[in-house]
Amino acid sequence: MGGPHPTDEPQREGRLSRRGLLLGGGAAAGAGAALLIGADALVRAARPDATPEGEPAPHGRDVVPFHGPHQAGIHTPPQAHAKFVSVDLAKEVDAEGVRRLLVLLSDDAARLTQGEAALADSEPELALVPARLTVTFGFGRGLVERVAPDAVPSWLRPLPDFATDRLRSEWSGGDLLVQVCADDPVTVAHCARMLTKDVRAFGTVRWAQDGFRRARGSEAAGTTMRNLMGQVDGTVNLEPGTEDFDRLVWAGADAPAWLRGGTGVVVRRIAMDLEGWDRLDRPGREEAVGRRLSDGAPLTGEREHDEPDFAALTPLGFPRIAEYAHIRRARTENPDERIFRRAYNYDVPVAGTAGHDAGLLFVSYQADVERQFVPIQRRLDELDLLNEWVSPIGSAVFAVPPGCEEGGFVGEGLFGA
Amino acid sequence: MGGPHPTDEPQREGRLSRRGLLLGGGAAAGAGAALLIGADALVRAARPDATPEGEPAPHGRDVVPFHGPHQAGIHTPPQAHAKFVSVDLAKEVDAEGVRRLLVLLSDDAARLTQGEAALADSEPELALVPARLTVTFGFGRGLVERVAPDAVPSWLRPLPDFATDRLRSEWSGGDLLVQVCADDPVTVAHCARMLTKDVRAFGTVRWAQDGFRRARGSEAAGTTMRNLMGQVDGTVNLEPGTEDFDRLVWAGADAPAWLRGGTGVVVRRIAMDLEGWDRLDRPGREEAVGRRLSDGAPLTGEREHDEPDFAALTPLGFPRIAEYAHIRRARTENPDERIFRRAYNYDVPVAGTAGHDAGLLFVSYQADVERQFVPIQRRLDELDLLNEWVSPIGSAVFAVPPGCEEGGFVGEGLFGA
Ligand code: HEM
Ligand code: HEM
Repeated sequence: MGGPHPTDEPQREGRLSRRGLLLGGGAAAGAGAALLIGADALVRAARPDATPEGEPAPHGRDVVPFHGPHQAGIHTPPQAHAKFVSVDLAKEVDAEGVRRLLVLLSDDAARLTQGEAALADSEPELALVPARLTVTFGFGRGLVERVAPDAVPSWLRPLPDFATDRLRSEWSGGDLLVQVCADDPVTVAHCARMLTKDVRAFGTVRWAQDGFRRARGSEAAGTTMRNLMGQVDGTVNLEPGTEDFDRLVWAGADAPAWLRGGTGVVVRRIAMDLEGWDRLDRPGREEAVGRRLSDGAPLTGEREHDEPDFAALTPLGFPRIAEYAHIRRARTENPDERIFRRAYNYDVPVAGTAGHDAGLLFVSYQADVERQFVPIQRRLDELDLLNEWVSPIGSAVFAVPPGCEEGGFVGEGLFGA
Repeated sequence: MGGPHPTDEPQREGRLSRRGLLLGGGAAAGAGAALLIGADALVRAARPDATPEGEPAPHGRDVVPFHGPHQAGIHTPPQAHAKFVSVDLAKEVDAEGVRRLLVLLSDDAARLTQGEAALADSEPELALVPARLTVTFGFGRGLVERVAPDAVPSWLRPLPDFATDRLRSEWSGGDLLVQVCADDPVTVAHCARMLTKDVRAFGTVRWAQDGFRRARGSEAAGTTMRNLMGQVDGTVNLEPGTEDFDRLVWAGADAPAWLRGGTGVVVRRIAMDLEGWDRLDRPGREEAVGRRLSDGAPLTGEREHDEPDFAALTPLGFPRIAEYAHIRRARTENPDERIFRRAYNYDVPVAGTAGHDAGLLFVSYQADVERQFVPIQRRLDELDLLNEWVSPIGSAVFAVPPGCEEGGFVGEGLFGA
């Protein structure tokens, strides 16, 4: 699985070299640096006290492993909050610069996800509530080309143009994706801040997008999320742990070696015209998708997870699930044209109007973006009644390397690839 | 307590007149309106199923009463998420227009906070998870003047200028505040959207600000929040339910009759220079506030809630809690110069830089803004080491009317005042 995993290298070395990088890089200096490096110890005392008898244990201590064959944050059950940060690398950052950046980022992500302060953490107490924090790194074409120009996956480039696209450059592209998810918004803010500080000497933030789902514990576990159009969204999806998921999400033998065990991610900011949607009646809305609003059941079924019957006809002889229905258009006979969706809602107030910029941060993972995502998107672009109310305003594609072992760093397989 | 409470008026009439308003106002028409008005019934079936044995009950069903002597969202233990929306009323909206708007808003807030769809709710299913939703209305001078120009509290105007202010009009002022708080971000988004739809025929959104604290249940109950500087923030505060709180927060006999049982709210967007703060060492940071970062204890004490000893000296004869320390400056001998703080963090990514706009949505409630808030702010403006890293970039003051009974509406006391 992609490149050497130096698991036999003592962890201390990793830390020492990290420290050298930091001091060398000017990210911290003199007494301040020494102080900050000691922060881990200082904050131990601040760990929240034991939970009073009878109360549920705070979920803020829940931890998702950072190391392993795959990066976390993909097959991890979706956390309530997400921040997607896209970075433009500075022109002068070469392969060695990329390596230093990835070592820094992996090291801090490893700490923060485990509820420990980042190495130069300026607010170490904010790190003590991991709340299932995951950090997932994705590489844009610009990053991979600097390191291993011969090992760029063919699909790692902007998506083809679609007629329904209304893309804006300020929400599109980037060399490096830092995806931060947790059940606590303070945790997400703190982690994203620490990681963007690591980035500072190497580039600038191109865009950052915040997303949310229902709060942890506000609904019964296993409830499918609803998007801001009110639809149950995520019913038919690849399921982590299944053979289909492993085959279609994790990159395999036909991917460049450094990417095996990784995946590809598509991040699209899709604006919703909620005002227009509001003017449509409920039957119209249900027909646009092919599912009921109340519980997400297909129009031909009784329960959310019933299999839709695409052949069923109304008494007048029309398809019960219309030709233009989103779920009919999003599905093919080809079992390989499937993706794993892990979307978030977004809702940003727009001052000076009664409106706001709201929609879906559509996020999907698939081993091969070209073969799996593009055909679905092409079909939806051609015909999908939902297009009347949604328009993609941002788009980015990244290759997501596999996970790393302790002492390694995410993307290490790229070096020498 | 301020104005007639038509509690004997049958509730059906309230609903009918509300419906008349809606149809008259053009917010919904024809079949669509009938359909939407029936939405309540439709979505009953969608209520989440009973919780599986062994799991904690979803907290999304927790409800805070809307009706009562005080508006909720003030003495309510702070929810994880908040949205503050400030509205500019259109020029042509007169007293009768304000009344219609307040009836609409109160009616929808009463429904939504109880986990019911708004009257013309376009996504009624999103309303089913109240998650301790509260809606709190505040009136700017511009609103009160249209209805009862002789009953404007003297303090209801922009705060005096402070030397440290860097105010921007896009974060300041407004005629009407709609404060929406809940433990679930989808609930906040949905409620704010429904209420801004009610507003549409009457004005425009001037600004909207999102804030967050730790997620519900991520820390042990009763943990004081931390702000993004990492400080324990909220230790010394008025406590709901105490005599001091009742006296200093709820407006009494010296307020205009319509405001008694209400309060005044100050909303200040205070930007933090986190990059600059990061360059300060821990002892420096602790001195700036006068409290320890690890646990919030005063520099003269052992535990968070220990009383600070402002007379204590270091071996060299300097005050242990410096003259410029925030907690020394924020406190006076005058027991009436106290406020109830209920702040939120904010953190908005700024594209094109490695930075972001982060800080504190400082929110305080006090019966008399002039007598309670202004002297504190004046002292902090004169001297407070924290000023090196924080600057107010937005400011607004609103009068918060008392609560209403079922069948009434918030602010009803203003009519005929
Ligand atoms: C804002 C835009 C979108 C909205 C509101 C939306 C909404 C929905 C809804 C409500 C469903 C049915 C429930 C479910 O199975 O999850 C669904 C299914 C699906 N959507 Fe979307 N979707 C959007 C964009 C997209 C895009 C861009 C793609 C991929 C290019 C996509 C692919 C799918 C797929 C594959 C399914 C499952 C279809 C099936 O096999 O039943 N969707 N979507
Ligand atoms: C971003 C700006 C601010 C920050 C970071 C901040 C932070 C803090 C911190 C850490 C404390 C000590 C813990 C506590 O008792 O809560 C505190 C106390 C306090 N702050 Fe602030 N504060 C800010 C702005 C303000 C403003 C604008 C006011 C009012 C004008 C204010 C009034 C107070 C008061 C009254 C106390 C309690 C003092 C006492 O011990 O009696 N603060 N603040």
